[in-house]
Amino acid sequence: MTALAENVDCLTTVEALLPVVGASTTVPLVDGTQRVYANLDYAASAPALEAVAARVTEVLPLYASVHRGAGYLSQVSTALYEASRQTIARFVGAREDDVAIITRNTTDSLNLLAGVVPGSVLVLDLEHHANLLPWVHSRTSQGHTTTVLPIGATVAATLDALRAELARGSYALVTITGASNVTGEALPIDAVVELAHAVGTRVAVDGAQLVPHRGFSLAATDVDYVAFSGHKTYAPFGAGALVGRRDWLDAGVPYLAGGGAVRDVRTDRTIWQPAPARHEAGSPNVIGAIALAEACDQLAALPAGALAAHEEALRARLVEGLTAIDGVHVARIWPDSAAPVGVLTFTVPGHDAGLVAAYLAAEHGIGVRDGRFCAHPLLAHLDASHGAIRASVGVGTTSEAVDRLVAGVAAYLAAGPGSRYEVVDSCWAVADDPRPLVHVHGLDHLAATAAAACGPALDD
Amino acid sequence: MTALAENVDCLTTVEALLPVVGASTTVPLVDGTQRVYANLDYAASAPALEAVAARVTEVLPLYASVHRGAGYLSQVSTALYEASRQTIARFVGAREDDVAIITRNTTDSLNLLAGVVPGSVLVLDLEHHANLLPWVHSRTSQGHTTTVLPIGATVAATLDALRAELARGSYALVTITGASNVTGEALPIDAVVELAHAVGTRVAVDGAQLVPHRGFSLAATDVDYVAFSGHKTYAPFGAGALVGRRDWLDAGVPYLAGGGAVRDVRTDRTIWQPAPARHEAGSPNVIGAIALAEACDQLAALPAGALAAHEEALRARLVEGLTAIDGVHVARIWPDSAAPVGVLTFTVPGHDAGLVAAYLAAEHGIGVRDGRFCAHPLLAHLDASHGAIRASVGVGTTSEAVDRLVAGVAAYLAAGPGSRYEVVDSCWAVADDPRPLVHVHGLDHLAATAAAACGPALDD
Repeated sequence: MTALAENVDCLTTVEALLPVVGASTTVPLVDGTQRVYANLDYAASAPALEAVAARVTEVLPLYASVHRGAGYLSQVSTALYEASRQTIARFVGAREDDVAIITRNTTDSLNLLAGVVPGSVLVLDLEHHANLLPWVHSRTSQGHTTTVLPIGATVAATLDALRAELARGSYALVTITGASNVTGEALPIDAVVELAHAVGTRVAVDGAQLVPHRGFSLAATDVDYVAFSGHKTYAPFGAGALVGRRDWLDAGVPYLAGGGAVRDVRTDRTIWQPAPARHEAGSPNVIGAIALAEACDQLAALPAGALAAHEEALRARLVEGLTAIDGVHVARIWPDSAAPVGVLTFTVPGHDAGLVAAYLAAEHGIGVRDGRFCAHPLLAHLDASHGAIRASVGVGTTSEAVDRLVAGVAAYLAAGPGSRYEVVDSCWAVADDPRPLVHVHGLDHLAATAAAACGPALDD
Repeated sequence: MTALAENVDCLTTVEALLPVVGASTTVPLVDGTQRVYANLDYAASAPALEAVAARVTEVLPLYASVHRGAGYLSQVSTALYEASRQTIARFVGAREDDVAIITRNTTDSLNLLAGVVPGSVLVLDLEHHANLLPWVHSRTSQGHTTTVLPIGATVAATLDALRAELARGSYALVTITGASNVTGEALPIDAVVELAHAVGTRVAVDGAQLVPHRGFSLAATDVDYVAFSGHKTYAPFGAGALVGRRDWLDAGVPYLAGGGAVRDVRTDRTIWQPAPARHEAGSPNVIGAIALAEACDQLAALPAGALAAHEEALRARLVEGLTAIDGVHVARIWPDSAAPVGVLTFTVPGHDAGLVAAYLAAEHGIGVRDGRFCAHPLLAHLDASHGAIRASVGVGTTSEAVDRLVAGVAAYLAAGPGSRYEVVDSCWAVADDPRPLVHVHGLDHLAATAAAACGPALDD
């Protein structure tokens, strides 16, 4: 381990790229000390940018009903909501004709899109559930079929399989992730767009990981639809978005039935609005949309390449550090994949991923994620159906957090856990947990969240 | 008008019951002055309680991924999210077996419920769209029928019609509003429950208006399901709830397909979770749920009867003031209805509702709502298909706001508007609006929102 430690020591320090809320939050360890929380679970939910929190505080005194209230503040709130829609659309390079629908998150966006695609859909089996289950389950009732295509051993083989299937079937849409939520890897979007458009098939990109971590442009890529989430884009206030071609969204079945989505209702017939109102029934999440737009503005204002450079430095450090540890296996889908975002999954063969994750939390103040990352078929493909550990970074991450994880995993393998851990209700927990609860109203226990792998894994 | 003014003068001042964010926000008038905004559109969206805003600020530094992150803050956030679910359930008097699902709002809750009811549904034609369209539109594909029953001329006649229809058909569910979003009136819930349960039919209550303004208990009323919204319950952070009997929710089609809703996925089959996870695919709106729970706690902590007393005083003052003005008509569905919440709709026959609303905003700093309130069939029934004006109050409302509205309407009829108004894109706006924009980043215009009634009304 000495070589590793020396190697880490001589690396440059990487600071956070943007200030996030909770960057200095400390958490208790089992040894009675406190450490600044090392949040390495950005791929699930990212902390709010400080600018986003400030924006929410700024607009809350102006908040009023939108679209149909006649008061001055309703006029202000409506204008801010609609301006946020434009900002969000601009952030993903929307074309002039594209429409942006405010949803709750990527899952919601893709369920919405699944409801309006007027034909068959092709999806790869590496997708996480948000970009898999909507296509398989939401569409049966409409008589549309969805084909789940197994990925190949390489990116090149996968593109070949995609080309062959697109030529064989008649697909309205192919939907792919912009970056795997498990390994950060991706198919080259340009190649997929070229293959699909050549046969008149549209392309949707699940941008949950890509959009916040690399940015994305519909216009530049010629992708037809993109979905992403506020809680992964430093704006955890319940809003996400679907942005893309207007025609299907104008014509498709309204997503939610309710007020705001209709022009006129009699008990015997309904006249629906076009998009976006068609799919935003009920009062919209105004604060969530404004928060997401602020995050988009903050990310867009970073110098060109800064986002990628920051994450690539941290990811390389993680890969290098973990790979250097005997007994750690870093997962990879393809040998020839490129441009991964700052997401990395590893296993410690012979050791339960949930136990390692619980140890990293209790003894090092690190937050990673363990389990199957809502991508069960991919985890099976990676031979990790019993679970793995994922570390992911973002604009608030420092090299200290990354180095702490590498050192923590090394220490686990060298010396084993210092405390006793037990499985309670299928989750790993510290036995007789001595850690105090953070003092906040409404908190009377810690919820155990690190899943234990047991039998045929049914944890998530 | 002297008699009215004297009458108003001798009434006691009513203060706000709880502090809300933006209570002191001033807005510009067309005469160049500023006034504290009189928000009389609580029935659409209520301002955040100060305690709710403080709670969001308190928990944001602790925010992390829930349910599957292994870190200490994920354990804290998960515990806070699940505790919020319990608080929300408790606030509506959930029974031990009931389940609470965090949704985005009432519309979302009722669309979800519409997807799991295993049989036919009976709904009244007075419902607003959130409790009308989901039943008519979401269910066709499942082969279930929904009957829209016309209301009677009285509450008694309506209950008779309901009794007869329940005896005639075989309904799984009857769904009614807890209080009309147009007039604040309601059917007696106890009577509806008795009629329905006598024939084995369950009851759902649209609690969007009732829950925040009067409180509600599933256990006390024996109602089976209740839906409500955070943005009407002083927690405008994108979360609402559906609470009720577990069996249909455990067995029904999952609402959204995606991660978190499933136990195990292979590409050829999916094993779904029971409720609530079954219906909460994707990352939940943790901050929204915590905000809503805080609002529930604040409302629950008020002295018994305080909520009702405050609103009844304000509503009585509104009814008395407006009724006393020649040329104003206060709408009423039934002559024998009881227990209205603080929502009231009126028309000024011969005058466009949108113009009156725009005038009240521009010349008096008042925020009301005009249009058809997402309840088109009811507005037709009330002979107000060209639109009406709605005023609604809540815990932040003072008698000053109510008195200002009464005086403003009287002044409009006595002297007419002081500025010139014009219809632009079907909305009323001040011609050459001299009002400055409130200084906030991202705001470059006021969105016109007061709908003009023209031709066969298709405004909302």
